[in-house]
Amino acid sequence: MAFSEFRPLDENSLIEYIKATPSLSSKIGHNYDGLKIKEVGDGNLNFVYIIVAPSGSFVIKQALPYMRCIGESWPMTKERAYFEAVALKQHGGLCPEHVPEVYHFDRTMSLIGMRYLEPPHIILRKGLIAGIEYPLLAEHMSEYMAKTLFCTSLLYRSTTEHKRAVVEFCGNVELCRLTEQVVFSDPYKVSEYNHWTSPYLDRDAETIREDYLLKIEVAELKSKFCERAQALIHGDLHTSSVMVTPDSTQVIDPEFAFYGPMGFDIGAFIGNLILAFFAQDGHAGQGNDRKSYKEWILKTIEDTWNLFHQKFTALWDEHKNGSGEAYLPAIYNNPELQKLIQEKYMKELLHDTLGFGAAKMIRRIVGVAHVEDFESIKEANIRADCERRALELGKTLLKRRREFVSISEVISAMKHIQS
Amino acid sequence: MAFSEFRPLDENSLIEYIKATPSLSSKIGHNYDGLKIKEVGDGNLNFVYIIVAPSGSFVIKQALPYMRCIGESWPMTKERAYFEAVALKQHGGLCPEHVPEVYHFDRTMSLIGMRYLEPPHIILRKGLIAGIEYPLLAEHMSEYMAKTLFCTSLLYRSTTEHKRAVVEFCGNVELCRLTEQVVFSDPYKVSEYNHWTSPYLDRDAETIREDYLLKIEVAELKSKFCERAQALIHGDLHTSSVMVTPDSTQVIDPEFAFYGPMGFDIGAFIGNLILAFFAQDGHAGQGNDRKSYKEWILKTIEDTWNLFHQKFTALWDEHKNGSGEAYLPAIYNNPELQKLIQEKYMKELLHDTLGFGAAKMIRRIVGVAHVEDFESIKEANIRADCERRALELGKTLLKRRREFVSISEVISAMKHIQS
Repeated sequence: MAFSEFRPLDENSLIEYIKATPSLSSKIGHNYDGLKIKEVGDGNLNFVYIIVAPSGSFVIKQALPYMRCIGESWPMTKERAYFEAVALKQHGGLCPEHVPEVYHFDRTMSLIGMRYLEPPHIILRKGLIAGIEYPLLAEHMSEYMAKTLFCTSLLYRSTTEHKRAVVEFCGNVELCRLTEQVVFSDPYKVSEYNHWTSPYLDRDAETIREDYLLKIEVAELKSKFCERAQALIHGDLHTSSVMVTPDSTQVIDPEFAFYGPMGFDIGAFIGNLILAFFAQDGHAGQGNDRKSYKEWILKTIEDTWNLFHQKFTALWDEHKNGSGEAYLPAIYNNPELQKLIQEKYMKELLHDTLGFGAAKMIRRIVGVAHVEDFESIKEANIRADCERRALELGKTLLKRRREFVSISEVISAMKHIQS
Repeated sequence: MAFSEFRPLDENSLIEYIKATPSLSSKIGHNYDGLKIKEVGDGNLNFVYIIVAPSGSFVIKQALPYMRCIGESWPMTKERAYFEAVALKQHGGLCPEHVPEVYHFDRTMSLIGMRYLEPPHIILRKGLIAGIEYPLLAEHMSEYMAKTLFCTSLLYRSTTEHKRAVVEFCGNVELCRLTEQVVFSDPYKVSEYNHWTSPYLDRDAETIREDYLLKIEVAELKSKFCERAQALIHGDLHTSSVMVTPDSTQVIDPEFAFYGPMGFDIGAFIGNLILAFFAQDGHAGQGNDRKSYKEWILKTIEDTWNLFHQKFTALWDEHKNGSGEAYLPAIYNNPELQKLIQEKYMKELLHDTLGFGAAKMIRRIVGVAHVEDFESIKEANIRADCERRALELGKTLLKRRREFVSISEVISAMKHIQS
């Protein structure tokens, strides 16, 4: 280890650090000729350096003890790097195809060395804004979610293993609290951090703060988020936490990871795809009306849930006589009963997914952190129209999620609002 | 501390231990003349000694590393004494009127020294079998449950405090697993430990093992038990965990304590009152038909829930601007909204209570550990009739709990089955 206490690295000290760290320096053959370093952190919380040398490459991510976008006035534990590293390793062990390999972790420095996701990998959100189709996206994301969520739940694990794992991630409470605040609380009250496309959405934001049913439903979801240790979730699975090429899908940045409700991950991903869908009208023009792209997004949403459903229940069938303790084989080893149980479980998971997805959509329009899908729409009135449609669907899903029995009904609701 | 490593105490080494322990010896004025020691543990897990001297008294409870009733073949961590001591202190701090004071705890020896609940305190279950009315029971138990459950939940605490507390009690996993097995699993499968009043209930036990809906519902409750850290629950709140006189109600033995669903505690207590009710016909005779006593039990069940509801929501109202993070005042500080939220919360809590209560009833009739309420009915055919009625209600409550909107409907269902 290069340093005995935490200090933020710059490009010079970074090289010194790499030289002193065999697990990193070996990745570039200990050869510093032609080494290139680029700082690329565009997030709110961290420094990210890309290190590329003729003989290899990696990424260094260092957590800072505050929110980078706001500055030192919003402190944020750098211990989150520890939880990110543990989650990357655990999820990576379960689904190596879609999680970048961790080469090195330094808890003192809050620093992770991991695989560099080389070009043409880009942030999925940017691809969605550019109108690029990713034919394998639903397949890959459903695979990632099915494996990571199933295998860290009581469907696969004993309660002893489960409680031990829950304990470890309870330490990530500061990041959980940030989610509680920005997703489940701030959008429903007056908060200095909230903003929206004003004045167009002034009344819409106010309506949310006055909607009793919405507040009742979001409280139920918040309780579930705080109390229910269902699986090791990524905790921030929006479309900027996914890097893609047409062939590759890689999930990054699980610093919000903890044992929480599965629907929070699935909802984050699907909710952000829905935001991407409603933003498309703002990106239309120059000979591309985005109509066929919108169809692709709809299909991707539908496929993501349906493939997740299929893969998750297939894992369940495969491991139904395993060490998972939720449904003991001596009680539930009957095809008809197994089917009934799975239908009930997946129906509730769909409802959780829609509820959490809706909460994530709403907060991106009237809360503190917005999404580039909408922010990149320059004309405020057009942006507001797009956002208002997303908001309408979000409110419907949050309040009436239990009436949806399949993802195709969500697609229909999206089309209805769009038309 | 008297001993440097664990050893089970006998009456001789107990005196040696007390002499070496000021927090205990001071309770009897360091005076060993006229000291009386009595071993009274009638439970399955521990040794319990009563120490009475002219100048004072206390109780010593020592956990053994196995289930006492079965022997060393069923190992059980003696660390449970630690969780019992912590729960006694925390619940005692919140509700000192109904929790005995802890004088001393020795983790190495798995030993708790605490207040001796002097005569005429008896185990509530024995009082219920004897047909004794406790006019303050519902008042006291509702007070205990409202205070301990409310104040250890996110209605009262910050999420930071909550996660820290959850972590500590995750260590009590072995006792949680015992509950998972004997309450949520064994009664629904063939198990060597199961027994029932045979041959009378052979078909009834078989029916339970074949009932898909029952198995689906009990799985939902098991998941909630394993995953939902709602409050610090006692974990074993049946009528043998309560000692009573006409004026005093004291809750003991929280060795199963952990952060779980509130309904598990309320259900345990109410479910065991329901068992006591259905056992009464087996105790009738000798000029006492127990009719008025059964009316008192019904009233006690109804009052327990209704008073709990009243006290719990009163605590909520009182602390609605406090540090509890489930419902932030900035979002929910509106009388009408507050009322809607409480109604929803209490409705769900009633359904949890009925579900868990039903699971506890069923397991006491066809599982490993039975209750003296029924076991003390000598005629097997009469006992089986009583048990079958309790089983019928248990199955109804487990499967149709969501249809009950008030406790009075439960009372009606009890009367209907009884008639």
